Order: sequence, then structure tokens, then C-alpha cells
Amino acid sequence: MSTSFDLLGSDGAARRGRIGTAHGTVETPAFMPVGTVGTVKAMMPQSVAETGAEIVLGNTFHLMLRPGAERMAALGGLHKFMNWPGPILTDSGGFQVMSLAKLRKLDADGVTFRSPIDGSEHRLTPERSIEIQRLLDADITMSFDECTAWPVEEEAAASSMRLSMRWAERGRRAFVDRPGYGLFGIVQGSTYPALRAESVAALTAIGFDGYAVGGLAVGEGGRSMFSTLDMIMPLLPNDRPRYLMGVGRPAELVGAVRRGIDMFDCVMPSRAGRTAKAFTPRAEINLRNARHRDDPRPLDESCTCPACKHHSRAYLHHLVRSEEVLGAMLLTWHNLHYYQDIMRGLRAAIEARTLGHWIAAFEVEQGRGDIPPP
Amino acid sequence: MSTSFDLLGSDGAARRGRIGTAHGTVETPAFMPVGTVGTVKAMMPQSVAETGAEIVLGNTFHLMLRPGAERMAALGGLHKFMNWPGPILTDSGGFQVMSLAKLRKLDADGVTFRSPIDGSEHRLTPERSIEIQRLLDADITMSFDECTAWPVEEEAAASSMRLSMRWAERGRRAFVDRPGYGLFGIVQGSTYPALRAESVAALTAIGFDGYAVGGLAVGEGGRSMFSTLDMIMPLLPNDRPRYLMGVGRPAELVGAVRRGIDMFDCVMPSRAGRTAKAFTPRAEINLRNARHRDDPRPLDESCTCPACKHHSRAYLHHLVRSEEVLGAMLLTWHNLHYYQDIMRGLRAAIEARTLGHWIAAFEVEQGRGDIPPP
Repeated sequence: MSTSFDLLGSDGAARRGRIGTAHGTVETPAFMPVGTVGTVKAMMPQSVAETGAEIVLGNTFHLMLRPGAERMAALGGLHKFMNWPGPILTDSGGFQVMSLAKLRKLDADGVTFRSPIDGSEHRLTPERSIEIQRLLDADITMSFDECTAWPVEEEAAASSMRLSMRWAERGRRAFVDRPGYGLFGIVQGSTYPALRAESVAALTAIGFDGYAVGGLAVGEGGRSMFSTLDMIMPLLPNDRPRYLMGVGRPAELVGAVRRGIDMFDCVMPSRAGRTAKAFTPRAEINLRNARHRDDPRPLDESCTCPACKHHSRAYLHHLVRSEEVLGAMLLTWHNLHYYQDIMRGLRAAIEARTLGHWIAAFEVEQGRGDIPPP
Repeated sequence: MSTSFDLLGSDGAARRGRIGTAHGTVETPAFMPVGTVGTVKAMMPQSVAETGAEIVLGNTFHLMLRPGAERMAALGGLHKFMNWPGPILTDSGGFQVMSLAKLRKLDADGVTFRSPIDGSEHRLTPERSIEIQRLLDADITMSFDECTAWPVEEEAAASSMRLSMRWAERGRRAFVDRPGYGLFGIVQGSTYPALRAESVAALTAIGFDGYAVGGLAVGEGGRSMFSTLDMIMPLLPNDRPRYLMGVGRPAELVGAVRRGIDMFDCVMPSRAGRTAKAFTPRAEINLRNARHRDDPRPLDESCTCPACKHHSRAYLHHLVRSEEVLGAMLLTWHNLHYYQDIMRGLRAAIEARTLGHWIAAFEVEQGRGDIPPP
């Protein structure tokens, strides 16, 4: 009566798994492209699938404001709306609501806020967030929580985390069980080990179909993120997927998979693609740079995305300088393809139990920097 | 030693033909999407081909300024640069240079102008325009001409046309004959029959691989455009393609094909797609309009483009309102697909010698207006 999770293999703490949902399976470790308002920006949905992505993320906050949850349900749900027949995970809306600052008012029951689009008043509670995600037809629903800011005093982190745990329990009661649909809880507690442990204990006592780590990648830095993961991972049940929210750069994905994370989402590859930036195994490249103007070589010789198969750096540079939409389209496609290449590599290495070697080679390559000019 | 043209059939004055070029054939009547700076805006080149387009237009003016003609040649030419392996026609740069107004200085030999990108000084002469188009590797090169403004006195129209004819002769001498590469002359003379006849006589005396009608769709109105075509068409040689530059709306394409035009280019379908407008057999639709917000139906039930096959008007409305790039991508695709649908329909009707019926049905449909709200 929920999403499933099969653990297919492991290498050290790293896991190779498979999530089953109402709209298909997801091989893990998995990276979820972000489709904020019902589109992965500058990508046709078929192209997102061609990169190898099997699941995308939708944002409850944006979609509840426009087109609206009830309208979306009347139109047949988010899969049909955006023509993504595969699995969809939606966030709870909490993260964006909290970032509204002056436009929102938090109470014990939920949050009242004004739409940045038209100023209209809206309210999110744990129950309403779960209901909206059901109306959107999300395969994986996220608990409504308060993403604790960083840095934060331990006392404030504790009361924020405990509020989220009460909300998690209310959300669990509000969630309507259906075959292939799951609800994930979110571990909070900032970088305080005792609070993280308390949060895990509270969530596992309630019981969720998966466990997310929230409140990281909010400015604490890579080392602090990894040490927090090192502390949380052993506490989480082995038979449920683990999702690190909002992460991250390629090296962060690799480091988190090594520690036992199964799922990621991040705007980084798509946002970078809209600002002339490309990730390759060797470097982060800015295509606006004049060094690419006469370069007939692809971004990355080994990449099979359309930007690399069919176009030169000179062309990508030209598109970016000319402010052509196709520049954003091709670079977004490349970056999402590269992120999926990383996940494909990680999955194969865990299966072969050669993850240590794979990561060592990844790190050597990342240290080389971009190819020298021709 | 040039492009070829086979006349495969006709129905009244309308012609069904095939142009042979160094990069493949073009079935006519044909519509050429505009790929100004080396990209049909918001479209992958493969997607342009999927709409049925067999030839695209590139702009000499834009490409000579960025990336530059010599750089383009060093990078292997425009086909490789933009990953369009099929035929390409380039304009001469004249139209855009003339529209620079204060930034350009016209003399008998050519035009000196400043780049709107960086203020640098450039010069276009008939010989340099032909050379640039060779460096770009255009299958079809256009004569460098002065596009006469409208309205214009007969005397000014005459001297403008005669300047263009002198330039056409210089361009013909400068053009390097190569198998599969052709040079088209451009008929000028505004709406004055005697001047148009004089222009046709001058061009046919020089001898070109195709003849374009310039100086229309510049504000003279549909009736004046058609009466000018009615006058020019019988004067043009039957064994060469005829190209109506910068036209147009669907009804203008149909009316011009009926009069014997074989080729068109226009930014209208792509530009409309970036401003939330869609063409259907029944209407021109603005997707921003609130009437589409809850409409689960496609733009056009009979259309097989991705926007119509996979998405509702409600989704397209949502994308447009959310200022999402995918809105421009889908609507551009739809509009280009619809324009190619018109050309497919016209070609089939000329072959079947049922053009009169086809046009009558087209006009009935166009008169119906958009489908009523659900």
C-alpha cells in the first residue's frame, strides 16, 4: 500500500536500490531534476527522460499558487499536465514558504502567507500540504516541515525540529494510503548530533516510506554536511530510501552516495545551464569566456548529449553571447545529462563493488581542470 | 554548376517543384524558418527538421557581425556550426543594413555601417556580400540589394531599383559557381508595374538560378501585394524557382502560391511563438488569455506537433503566464509545424490539381474563429 524499496546491492555504506511507484520504478542512487512549476526549465519532458532521469521533482509552493491544486486535479494531475508519465516527487512547500520572510506568519498549526504573484492570502498546514500533494498526484509526498536556517543556536534548532516532528505526525495521519504512493519524513536538527538523533527517532516511531535529510546545503559547508550525514546515516532504517534534499555539486553527490544516500534533487545543473555554465568531468566551464570563441571541440569529448555530439564550444559561446534560448536549452540538457552520467557511474560501481576506485578516478579527473585552449 | 529546379506539376499558376542543392533537395512550395544568428529561436535543429522544414534561412548581417564570416568558415561553415545538414539560404544583409537608418551611409559602391553590437565599423558591397555568403557556405546566395521602402515616389523607386540591378550584375560576376550552389536575383520596383517589369528584364538578362520578389510585405497591404505579384509572375522564367521574401501570414502564403510563388521565409511563426501566439487552421490564438486557463483540449485536435499531442491549452497558458521557456519552445514548434502543414497541403493539392477546392476549404476554416470555450 505504498512505494516500495528493494536494496539490490551495496559497497561499504553506499547502496544500490530500486524504488517502485505508481508511475514506474527509479533506480538508485538517483538524481531528480527540478521541475518547479511543472517544467524542467528549458527542456522538453521527453528530453529530460532522454538524459536518463526517471523521476522529477515538482514544487508544491509554486503549483498551489499557479495553476492551483484543485485546478491541477481537475486537469488530471501533474503527470498529465506536464507530460511526464514517470514518477514525481513533490516537496511540501515548507522550504519556499519559510523563505518568504516578511510575507509569512508562522504559528503552531501552520503558516499563513501572501502569494508573491498576486498578493492573495494562502495557508499551508501539514494537512493541507499533504492534500495538495495528493491533488497534484505526487508518487512521493514530502512531510510539511520547517527547514531550519543556518547558523542557528541549539535551542532554536531544537524547537524548530520538534515543531517539524509534530507536523510530520499530523501529515502521516492526513496521508491517504494508496498502492504505489509513499510519504517521506524529513530529519531536521541542524548540525547538532543529539537533535538529529532525536529527529530520526521521532520519525521512525511514526514510520515513513522513506527518510529525507533536510536542513543541509543551507550554508554550513561541505565538511559540516558530510559530518552530519556520517552521524545520521547509521540511525536510519536500512530498508527505506534516503533522500538528501537540495544537494548539490557533483562532488557532493558522490560524497553523499558513499555515505548511503539514495536520492537527490538540486536546481544546480539546470540553473547553471541558463547562466552559460557547464559541468564536465574535469571542470565547471563558463561558456561566455572568450577562450571558447574559436574552439571547434565539444564541451566534453566523452559526453553523448546533443550539445556535445552536435556542437562546438564556439557555437555554444556564440549562442550564449547572442542571448539565444538554444544556449540555455543545450547547456541545461548537457548538465542534466552529466548529472545522470554521474549517477549511472555510481550505480554501476556499487553493483561491481568498485566504488572506491570509481571515486578515486572521479576525483583525479575533477582535479585536472578544463582542457587547455586549442 | 548550380542549384537545380524541376517543375513537377502545376494547377493554374501554382507550381509543384523540387530544388536541388549541394545539401539536399527542397520540395516546393516551401516555407523556410528563419534562423537569424544560426539558430531558429527556441528550437533544436532536429526539431526544425521534424516539423517538415527542408531548408532554413540564415542572416548575413547578423552572422557577419557575430561570429564573423571568416570565423564561421574556419569552423566549417554554417551547416556544421548550427548542426543543420540540409540546404541553407542566406539573405544578402541588405535589408537589415538599410534599416539601421542613422548608423549607415549608402554610396554607389555599397554601404558603410556601425555594428549595433559593439559600434565597430563594417562595409558591405555587392562583392563582399557574395563573399560572406560563400564563407557561410550558403546553398542559395541572395543578391545584395536595396529593399525599397514603402510608400515611395516612382522616381525614387526607380533609382533605388536601378542601383539594385547594378549591384545584382556585380554580384553575379563575383559569385563563384559551384555544383549545387545557386545565386538568386531580387526583383525591386515597389508597386510600379513599369519598374517591376524593367527589374525583371534586367535580372533575366543577367541570368540567375532563381528570382525573388523583394520590397513587398513592407506595409503596402495584402491587396497591393497580390496585385504586384499578379503583374510580376507572368514575366518570370518558368524554369526557375520564385521566392517571395519576408512573407507572411497563412493566408498570404496561400494567395502567393496560387499566383506561382515557390518559396517563402518569415519570422512570423517563430516570433509569434515567443509572444504566446499560436496559429491554427481556425484562428490566431493568444495563450495568455484567461479563457484557456481551465481548457483541457489541445490547441488544435488535428495537429501532430508535441504541443498539441501532449499538452492542453491549460498547460500552455500556465507556461506562458509563468514566463517559462518551454512555452516559447512548444508554441514555436507548433507554429512552424502548422506552417509546414500548410505547405504540405498546398503541395498535395497542386499535385492532385485540386488547389481551388483546397483553398476554398482553407478559407472556410479560417473564417470560423477559435473553438468556443469548453
